[in-house]
Amino acid sequence: MEIGGLAAIVGTEHVLTGAATRGLLGDMTESRGVAGHAEAVVRPADAGEVAAVMAWCWEHGVALTPRGGGTGYAGGCVPQGGVVVALERLRDVRSFEPLLWRAEVEAGLTTHDVRRRARESGLYYPPDPGAGEQSHIGGNVATNAGGPHAFKYGVTGAWVTGLEVVLPPGRLVRIGGAVRKDVAGYDLRSLLIGSEGTLGIVTAVTLRFVPAPEAALPAIAFYADEHSGGEAVQAAMASGIVPAALEFLDREALEIVRAAFPFDVPPDAGFALIAEADGDLASAQRGQAALHELMAPDALAVHLPSAPAEVAALWRWREGVGLAAAAALGGKASEDVGVPVERLAEIVAGTRAIGARHDLATCSFGHAGDGNVHATFLLRSGDATATERAHAAAQELFALAIELGGTVSGEHGLGGVKNGQLRHQWDPAAVALHDGVKRLFDPRGLLNPGKKLA
Amino acid sequence: MEIGGLAAIVGTEHVLTGAATRGLLGDMTESRGVAGHAEAVVRPADAGEVAAVMAWCWEHGVALTPRGGGTGYAGGCVPQGGVVVALERLRDVRSFEPLLWRAEVEAGLTTHDVRRRARESGLYYPPDPGAGEQSHIGGNVATNAGGPHAFKYGVTGAWVTGLEVVLPPGRLVRIGGAVRKDVAGYDLRSLLIGSEGTLGIVTAVTLRFVPAPEAALPAIAFYADEHSGGEAVQAAMASGIVPAALEFLDREALEIVRAAFPFDVPPDAGFALIAEADGDLASAQRGQAALHELMAPDALAVHLPSAPAEVAALWRWREGVGLAAAAALGGKASEDVGVPVERLAEIVAGTRAIGARHDLATCSFGHAGDGNVHATFLLRSGDATATERAHAAAQELFALAIELGGTVSGEHGLGGVKNGQLRHQWDPAAVALHDGVKRLFDPRGLLNPGKKLA
Repeated sequence: MEIGGLAAIVGTEHVLTGAATRGLLGDMTESRGVAGHAEAVVRPADAGEVAAVMAWCWEHGVALTPRGGGTGYAGGCVPQGGVVVALERLRDVRSFEPLLWRAEVEAGLTTHDVRRRARESGLYYPPDPGAGEQSHIGGNVATNAGGPHAFKYGVTGAWVTGLEVVLPPGRLVRIGGAVRKDVAGYDLRSLLIGSEGTLGIVTAVTLRFVPAPEAALPAIAFYADEHSGGEAVQAAMASGIVPAALEFLDREALEIVRAAFPFDVPPDAGFALIAEADGDLASAQRGQAALHELMAPDALAVHLPSAPAEVAALWRWREGVGLAAAAALGGKASEDVGVPVERLAEIVAGTRAIGARHDLATCSFGHAGDGNVHATFLLRSGDATATERAHAAAQELFALAIELGGTVSGEHGLGGVKNGQLRHQWDPAAVALHDGVKRLFDPRGLLNPGKKLA
Repeated sequence: MEIGGLAAIVGTEHVLTGAATRGLLGDMTESRGVAGHAEAVVRPADAGEVAAVMAWCWEHGVALTPRGGGTGYAGGCVPQGGVVVALERLRDVRSFEPLLWRAEVEAGLTTHDVRRRARESGLYYPPDPGAGEQSHIGGNVATNAGGPHAFKYGVTGAWVTGLEVVLPPGRLVRIGGAVRKDVAGYDLRSLLIGSEGTLGIVTAVTLRFVPAPEAALPAIAFYADEHSGGEAVQAAMASGIVPAALEFLDREALEIVRAAFPFDVPPDAGFALIAEADGDLASAQRGQAALHELMAPDALAVHLPSAPAEVAALWRWREGVGLAAAAALGGKASEDVGVPVERLAEIVAGTRAIGARHDLATCSFGHAGDGNVHATFLLRSGDATATERAHAAAQELFALAIELGGTVSGEHGLGGVKNGQLRHQWDPAAVALHDGVKRLFDPRGLLNPGKKLA
């Protein structure tokens, strides 16, 4: 491939090849053996350069794979040839209007940066996917990322009022903006959100915020197993409040992170439920008390932290669960199936049983209130066939999630690792429309090829 | 047209023709002269019959226009020939699981029925478009309807986790369901929501609810004009809470409904702002006080109702504003443009100026916090050219909304009356995709033809 044309657009120093692309061709699926390859990684300086890069690729029939922070769990940014468009230099905060509860930021800003900016002005940007220090807001939009606080506040898309996006064959387009309600056209904004870079490349987003809640007070309870734990999740939903978060860990996940947990874990605990009440201080206190009352009856122990430092320590610990699971045996294949909330115990027990059939240790944790489970198969370093067995186990897991009325992906997306699963979940007519949407936006099939295939 | 085939599907008594279709071919645009015509109105009993009706129409090349409660303001359900598919018999509550905060209801249930069902179990379904006693939940989904409480809680689509929809050529398909998070495929659910029956016919929806807030306490303040009123809207956004609603009326709207207003209106009032704080009682009280503090400085008068009966009277009155405006001179052409919130005063003043140029009285009211304005041109009975002048005035209004960074439709949709406007708002590449989506779903152009045209 002759890449001189790309260098003319972004500058020679921003066209990386060979060894210089190391670390820019993979994501969290590397630990399960997913590898990418590309002719070059280009780092455009701004949206105009992204458009020019796409136009060049279109002209030359070269595939493009957009890349954010590289923290995905589905291989969505792992290139299968062509050019990687890394958006890390698009980091401008184009506007930030705290009194109007909104900002327009470029795709390469980290989730953490967005949340910090908001917080410094008394505002709250709720989506909190797991690797906020590294993940980019553009990647969050591309995957419609969630996180613990999506239970009350919704996923990324609920906070995006406008998109700037480069569409084939290289045109920079705005859809929506600062206006909060818009039903003039078909909802192309939502169609692009979660499309994993297969329909267009998001270069900037207009976000809305809300005033930050004054307090957030968790209630942590431990149960004997996922059956009593699953019932506690439903009990927490009868507290009269909308919990800000309803997270869980199963027995095996608890075992892995027990030592780092900032509170005592009962030795016989087989399930942890972390609920949180937020609002003004009095309201959060009443909510915490209401959660406590309903979560306590079958609990082995309950903790009710109130000091902000304790609460912060809890969520830092929670954010580390995924990495701890990966470190336990050396690697992991972590899925993100979703089920109706009352099927939580079944998918947790089912994950364990599937793992046992494939001789794989498992752990499950995640967003109990949303029925969104990080069902995880642990991969022992040096176990040559573990990845293969995990792949087979995942197929059974996906089938179980669908059988329970759920989805193969609650927040990671299909990426490359769940290709072909959607056809088991959707009616053939919907699958045909899914494929038709791809052809409509990307008739030459050059945008992140090999991803999000039904 | 030979309609024997339709009678075989739905029964002879549910195929209406001639005079029997009276009242089933129009919506709220009748008062501005928009008229529909159809060969027949069919009333299928269930989703299976809807699918069979579509299949029959496909086979015979007959257009279908779905109809809900007929309360739209954009002519979306006004047929231009073919068959009207009235969904009024699809009224089953297929499931209602209050402890799991959700229900699956058929398209023909009224918005009011859904809200009442939720409320009776201590739950809250927030969307409250203006004619909830008549409007159907299916029509709310088809237009992605809003209402006053969308400011805090979002529009209809935010509460829909699953759709049952009949897609061409007559296939009954489910997209989503009870699961709350799902990023497995492109977001076809959001694409169908707000598509105004031009991509498919919604037959049932899975809705999510939240626990009902214990209290909702409004603060009503009056200002000299839309400039000081617009500043008060922004002041209310600095109260530290998310107001449940932020509604407004301009001078002319106040004049029309002054007599019915349940509180005293200062004689020189040129703008009314209705904010509301909700939550547990203490929290709502604190919120109401915070709103009061920030809204009071420039206000001519402030009312702080606290008795539930007073609050209910306020919102009943608010719901009557649209009808009162229509009754003022005999008719109205009411639009629903949206602008960024800081442009509120400009669109209100602009509406008045546009009306003056076209010799039309105006009034504006609506959802201040969302910048969503029911900019209304009043049509005097017997004024033969008023409708025509209102049409010309609306074109200027749409151009102004776009110029201010807004949208031609914040909640009514394009329907038939705003055809052609989207191309002024969107980039040509996005318009081309809009048209492509239509062709993808409805290649024969039989679904609600003549609507939502870019």
